[in-house]
Amino acid sequence: MIQHVSKRASGSKRSAIRELLKLTERPEIISFGGGLPAPETFPHEQMADIAAEVIRENPQNVLQYGSTEGSRTLRKLMAEWLRPQGIDVTIDQLLVTTASQQGLDLLCKAFIDPGDVIFCGLPSYLGAIQSFRLFESRMVGVDLEDDGMNLDMLEQRIEAERAAGHRLKAVYVIPDFQNPSGISMSLEKRKRLLQIARREDLLIFEDNPYGQLRFAGDPIPSILSLDDEGAGRVMMLFTFSKVLCAGLRLALLIASGDLMDALVRVKQPTDLCTSKLTQHMAARYIERYGLDDHLAEIRKIYRVKRDAMIKALERHMPKDAGISWTNPDGGLFLWVRLPKGLNTETMFPRAIEHKVAYVIGSAFYVDGRGENTMRLSYSLVSTEDIEEGIRRLGDLIREELAVITP
Amino acid sequence: MIQHVSKRASGSKRSAIRELLKLTERPEIISFGGGLPAPETFPHEQMADIAAEVIRENPQNVLQYGSTEGSRTLRKLMAEWLRPQGIDVTIDQLLVTTASQQGLDLLCKAFIDPGDVIFCGLPSYLGAIQSFRLFESRMVGVDLEDDGMNLDMLEQRIEAERAAGHRLKAVYVIPDFQNPSGISMSLEKRKRLLQIARREDLLIFEDNPYGQLRFAGDPIPSILSLDDEGAGRVMMLFTFSKVLCAGLRLALLIASGDLMDALVRVKQPTDLCTSKLTQHMAARYIERYGLDDHLAEIRKIYRVKRDAMIKALERHMPKDAGISWTNPDGGLFLWVRLPKGLNTETMFPRAIEHKVAYVIGSAFYVDGRGENTMRLSYSLVSTEDIEEGIRRLGDLIREELAVITP
Repeated sequence: MIQHVSKRASGSKRSAIRELLKLTERPEIISFGGGLPAPETFPHEQMADIAAEVIRENPQNVLQYGSTEGSRTLRKLMAEWLRPQGIDVTIDQLLVTTASQQGLDLLCKAFIDPGDVIFCGLPSYLGAIQSFRLFESRMVGVDLEDDGMNLDMLEQRIEAERAAGHRLKAVYVIPDFQNPSGISMSLEKRKRLLQIARREDLLIFEDNPYGQLRFAGDPIPSILSLDDEGAGRVMMLFTFSKVLCAGLRLALLIASGDLMDALVRVKQPTDLCTSKLTQHMAARYIERYGLDDHLAEIRKIYRVKRDAMIKALERHMPKDAGISWTNPDGGLFLWVRLPKGLNTETMFPRAIEHKVAYVIGSAFYVDGRGENTMRLSYSLVSTEDIEEGIRRLGDLIREELAVITP
Repeated sequence: MIQHVSKRASGSKRSAIRELLKLTERPEIISFGGGLPAPETFPHEQMADIAAEVIRENPQNVLQYGSTEGSRTLRKLMAEWLRPQGIDVTIDQLLVTTASQQGLDLLCKAFIDPGDVIFCGLPSYLGAIQSFRLFESRMVGVDLEDDGMNLDMLEQRIEAERAAGHRLKAVYVIPDFQNPSGISMSLEKRKRLLQIARREDLLIFEDNPYGQLRFAGDPIPSILSLDDEGAGRVMMLFTFSKVLCAGLRLALLIASGDLMDALVRVKQPTDLCTSKLTQHMAARYIERYGLDDHLAEIRKIYRVKRDAMIKALERHMPKDAGISWTNPDGGLFLWVRLPKGLNTETMFPRAIEHKVAYVIGSAFYVDGRGENTMRLSYSLVSTEDIEEGIRRLGDLIREELAVITP
C-alpha cells in the first residue's frame, strides 16, 4: 500500500525531537529538552471560570461553527492591543488561526509552490522546517550571528539562487529570542532585511512566538512595525500559546490585501474555522484582565529560570574548553556550542545515563550541521533542578572532553 | 504582490455557499441554506460544567500541548464505542483531528500528488471539493443515483482515466445521508465499491459525518466495517461536530499501518496537536453520559424537522411540474430537482425577494452541472418556519415556471 503515499509525505519525517523526548520521560531524568511553555504561567483558575461562563452565556453561538476569519470580538481586542506596539492594523488584517503551526501551514499553502526558495536562519524552529519541507520548498540556510541572520550571507545566497534559476519567495525569521538559539535580531539588521526584501521582492514570514516574553534589555520593534511600504510584504505570526495557554491552539496571522485574501481562501478548506469556544475564552480573558499584567508575571518566572541556568552554566561547565552559550533577554531557550569533535547526538545516550537531557542541535539545521550544539530550555524545570541538571551536564561534558583530548 | 500567490491558492475560490449565505442573514428571510447542525442539539449545560471541571482537575495538562495522535483516553473511549458498529480498531488506528475538514486536508497531504485522480460522487460536499482542488488533484465526477454512486459509470471513468495515463488514487464517498443530496448508498453498492477499489488498488475516503443521525430505516454497515482485506484501504472520517458540538472542532480519522503513519507525519507540521481542552471535554462527556442517549434525542429533533419539510413540499410545490425531492432517512439535507429550464442561481435574487433562501445546486458539482437543483437544510429552522418557507419557495417556483412555460 505504501505506493499510495504522496511525494510530499514520503519526504516528511516524524520530529526527531519528539522521538528523542520520549526517552526523557523517566522521572529521574532532568530534561532541558521540551520546548513547551511553563504550565505555571497558564491562568487556569480564570480560564476554568471563563470556559463555563462563555458557554452558558451564548451556547448556541459558542458551540457552533464560526467564520473562517475568526471572532470579530477577539480580533478587535487584539488590534487595539497591537497598536501601541507600532502594529496599526484593522480587524480585516487579522486572521485567527488554529495555533501558529497552522499559520505556517497557511503561509505555505498560499505562497509556496514546490521548488520555491525560502531563506531560513539556521538553526531554526523545527516545526517551520517540517512545514516548509512538506510543501516541497527549497530551503536555503543562512547562518545566525549574535545579532541575528548573517545578511551578507543572505545576499550571497540570493544571488546564487537567482543565478541558478530558482524562484525566490520568502525569508523566514524569528527575530526575538529565536527558537532554538535564543538570539534576537538587531534593529539595524531588521531594517536592512526589509530593504533586501523590497529590492528582491521577497515576502518576510516574521514568526513571533516569544517577542512578548522579554525579561531584560530594551524592546526592538518588530519587522512588521518597521515596514512602511504598505505592500503587506511582512506577515507576522502571533500566538497565544506562550502568553496565555498552549492548549487553546489559538494564534493570529497578520497580513493584508491580496495576501490576506489568499490566506482566507486556503484557511477554508484547511479547517473551516478555528474553535469559537477557545476564541471566546481568549477574548473574555483579555476583556476582563488584559494581557499586560499577566505578561509581567510570566516574564518574572522566565527571568528567574534563565538567571538560574546562566549561573549554573558558569559554575559547572568546564573552563577554557571552548564551550559557549547564548544569554537570551527573553523566551524559553539558550544554545550551547561545544568544542569541535564533540557530537551531541552520539553522546545523548550517555546524557541519559547521567540523568540529564537536551535537544541535539543538528535537529534544527536543514543541512546536517550543528553536531556540536544543543538547545537547553529552562521553561519546564525548577531552579533547583536547573542547578542539578547543569551540574550533571557539566560532568558529562568533562568526560566527553577527556576522550577527545586525552 | 499577487505574483507571490501559489499556483494552488490561485486556483482556490472562496466558498460560493458562504458568500451567498451572507445575503440570507436578514431576519425576515427563512433560510434553508446553512448546513450547520441544529444548536439545540448541543448539550451545553453539561459542556459548561465539564469545561470548567477538566481545566480545574488538571490544568497543567489540559492547557498544555498534547501528542500529535491525540488523547489516549478519548481514543480508547471511541474505540470501545465503535466496536459494536463493526469497526474493530485499536487506539493506534484512531487519529484525533481538528475537525473532519482537517481530516480531508491530511488525507490530501498524505496521499494526493498534483494530478492524482479522486473519483467523487456528484453532487458532493463543497469542503471536500475545495480541499481536493487546493491539492491540485484531478477530480472526476460520478453521478449519484437514488442508491448512491453509479458504479457502472465509476468503472467507465476508471477505464478512461487509466487509458489517459492518469494516476488513480482514491474514491471519495459520503455513504450515509450524503451532503448535499441526503442519498444513502445501498449495501450492495458498498460491497461492489470495495471490490472495485481492491481490483483497481484505490483508496476509499469514507466521509461519515451523518451516519449516526439515522432517524428512519435500518442502518447499513459502513464501508470500513465491510472491509475484511486488512490492508487499511478504507479510511473513515468521523466527526463530533454533528453528534456533540461543532464548536469543539474535533473529529477522528480511522486508518491503519503505513497509511496511519503517513497521516501522523503530516499532522505534525499541520497543527502539532489538536486542543487538549476540547479533547478532554468530549472524553469526559462520553465517560459520564455516553453518546447513545444523546444521539437518540438528536435523531428525534431531526426527524420532526424532516417530516415537516416533506409535508410542506407535498403541500406547496406545484403538482405535475416535474419537481422531485429526496426523502432522507437521516442527516440534515434534502435535494430538490426542478424542471430543465429553471436555474436556481439566476432565480436566487428573486428567492431573496420572496424572503426564502436555499443553496444553489451547481455549487456542489465540479463540472458546472446541477443548475436546476438546490439543497434544502431543515436543521436550523423551526417546523413553523419550515412550513412558511416552503410555501414561499412554492410561490417562487410557480412564478418561475410561468415564465418558461407561458
